[in-house]
Amino acid sequence: MRNDINRRWLLASYPEGMPGLENWSRDEQPVPDPGPGQILVKAKWLSVDPYMRGRMSPAPGYTKGVGLGEVMQGGGVGEVVASNHPRWKAGDIAESMSFGWQEWSVLTPDIAGPAGVNKIDPALAPIESSLSWLGMPGITAYFGLLDVGRPRPGETVVVSAASGAVGQLVGQIAKLAGCRAVAIAGDDAKLQWCRELGFDGAINYKTANDLAAAVKRECPQGVDVFFDNTGGPIHDAVMKNLCIGARVVICGRVSLADRFGKPDIGERFMGHLIVTRASIHGFLVFDWWHRREEALRRLAAWQQTGRLRFKEDVLEGFERMPDAFLRLMHGKNFGKQIVRVG
Amino acid sequence: MRNDINRRWLLASYPEGMPGLENWSRDEQPVPDPGPGQILVKAKWLSVDPYMRGRMSPAPGYTKGVGLGEVMQGGGVGEVVASNHPRWKAGDIAESMSFGWQEWSVLTPDIAGPAGVNKIDPALAPIESSLSWLGMPGITAYFGLLDVGRPRPGETVVVSAASGAVGQLVGQIAKLAGCRAVAIAGDDAKLQWCRELGFDGAINYKTANDLAAAVKRECPQGVDVFFDNTGGPIHDAVMKNLCIGARVVICGRVSLADRFGKPDIGERFMGHLIVTRASIHGFLVFDWWHRREEALRRLAAWQQTGRLRFKEDVLEGFERMPDAFLRLMHGKNFGKQIVRVG
Repeated sequence: MRNDINRRWLLASYPEGMPGLENWSRDEQPVPDPGPGQILVKAKWLSVDPYMRGRMSPAPGYTKGVGLGEVMQGGGVGEVVASNHPRWKAGDIAESMSFGWQEWSVLTPDIAGPAGVNKIDPALAPIESSLSWLGMPGITAYFGLLDVGRPRPGETVVVSAASGAVGQLVGQIAKLAGCRAVAIAGDDAKLQWCRELGFDGAINYKTANDLAAAVKRECPQGVDVFFDNTGGPIHDAVMKNLCIGARVVICGRVSLADRFGKPDIGERFMGHLIVTRASIHGFLVFDWWHRREEALRRLAAWQQTGRLRFKEDVLEGFERMPDAFLRLMHGKNFGKQIVRVG
Repeated sequence: MRNDINRRWLLASYPEGMPGLENWSRDEQPVPDPGPGQILVKAKWLSVDPYMRGRMSPAPGYTKGVGLGEVMQGGGVGEVVASNHPRWKAGDIAESMSFGWQEWSVLTPDIAGPAGVNKIDPALAPIESSLSWLGMPGITAYFGLLDVGRPRPGETVVVSAASGAVGQLVGQIAKLAGCRAVAIAGDDAKLQWCRELGFDGAINYKTANDLAAAVKRECPQGVDVFFDNTGGPIHDAVMKNLCIGARVVICGRVSLADRFGKPDIGERFMGHLIVTRASIHGFLVFDWWHRREEALRRLAAWQQTGRLRFKEDVLEGFERMPDAFLRLMHGKNFGKQIVRVG
């Protein structure tokens, strides 16, 4: 056993509505030893993502939630310190969504799928990219827009939370696909960044008097693809502007974080769906995990040729993990929120 | 000009919410003469359909509504009495959605698409079938289920308004496609008819204590395809039972007839859509009109080989058109509501 200490963030209680600092506690454990076929990884970067709100629940959705007293679930990237696996050696860089909110993690590379471990080439991009544009958020944007939203050249694509981890990529991929891209965010600096990325239109949902009218102004031909990361009133405003045949991709609903677990009551637009022959698609990136390499290859090529840019919002220090997550829940992050821990 | 009188039902006022008899007035006009390229048809049967509620509005959806003082829009089938069109002669049977609520109609066969005129072969089926299973409702069921719902053998298909014009066909086509079919209706006699048609399960939404629990009981593996003709609380109950990858076809929302034009406020199930990766599809049969012959050919073949049955609900007399339509709005019809007028 090593002398080092493994600091961990544990789930202390299930939040009602919006999480707060009181929902986590920290402990310190000896650094664990890897078992047969396992590797020990020391975290360099940890990720916070909106899906974690769903895991902080006794009755989560598509996968098991975090139990009380258990380490918070979450992705991370770090350096292999010890390996009992033939294809891994000390010094390799490992990224995994099974990392957890902790400084050291024992991972099992032979697990397939989203819980598995990916070997990261530090020559390709900074290793923290594997938590953002060259990782899960990038794969989400790529398949969510291209396979679920199915944009055609000339169409208008509206993205909510447009400067976020997924949103900024969706807008840029929409431009690469020949579409008009319109950003919705709650801050003029965020919208300015979206314009720099090539978005053609921008809507500040916090300052617009009439959000549906603002969408109409920025999308005079209507909305063909709506990539929705927020739900709530932003969703409503865009729904009122759908074109015939529009596709609505429900990727997230971060605006409802304070109402988690409660019914989302609002207008259902069914008559409007009939009139427009539009469709709404719930979407989970893990259904595309078997095509992960396709997305990463394309994203890397676009980035290397200067067609894809990305903003990260970095907090320093493992102790700030809850802060980082709460920034995300409150929309205070500007770009993909990550935490440098080592 | 003929000596006959053409009785017509005109839209007298736009209803707020649920329509009533006061929304129509009747007049009598001379029977018109057909112009060049036109035919004069005397109605035998007229149809009432839920879509007509949408036409009784100054701001309708996918097409122009009925103006005040204009003849109510609606489909009908009848006998050609005079023809100025080379391919039509007196005695032919003509069906058209452009007929209107009137006893005589001048139609233009060269109009393409849903407003056009179809020549009906009375040897194939009773001519009123062209208003039901061998016409628009049949085409709606065929493409709405097979192309929008995309059922796979072994899946569970739930149909609301299951004994209605579209619903009884959806259930039988679902069975032909190898699915389990579950009927929702508000009357035990209607559900008994659905069972006779081959539906595997039946739910009375008026007597079920907990509708979502009733859906779960009849669909223990969950709902793969939900063909929704009603909206409202039935919609909610089925949405809570969707399988992973479920498809929801929004065909109509007759349960909301009394709230027409007002927002449909209710639960949006977005988190549930993400968890189940389900999709909701607004659907309008006219987008499949170019494939109309395919549907009619298949429907006719199934009926001729005893695999498709159909119940009509017949009112007698042109004067009963508003009654017939209101029966539909209140769910009092049992089977496809039609009116014998000649």
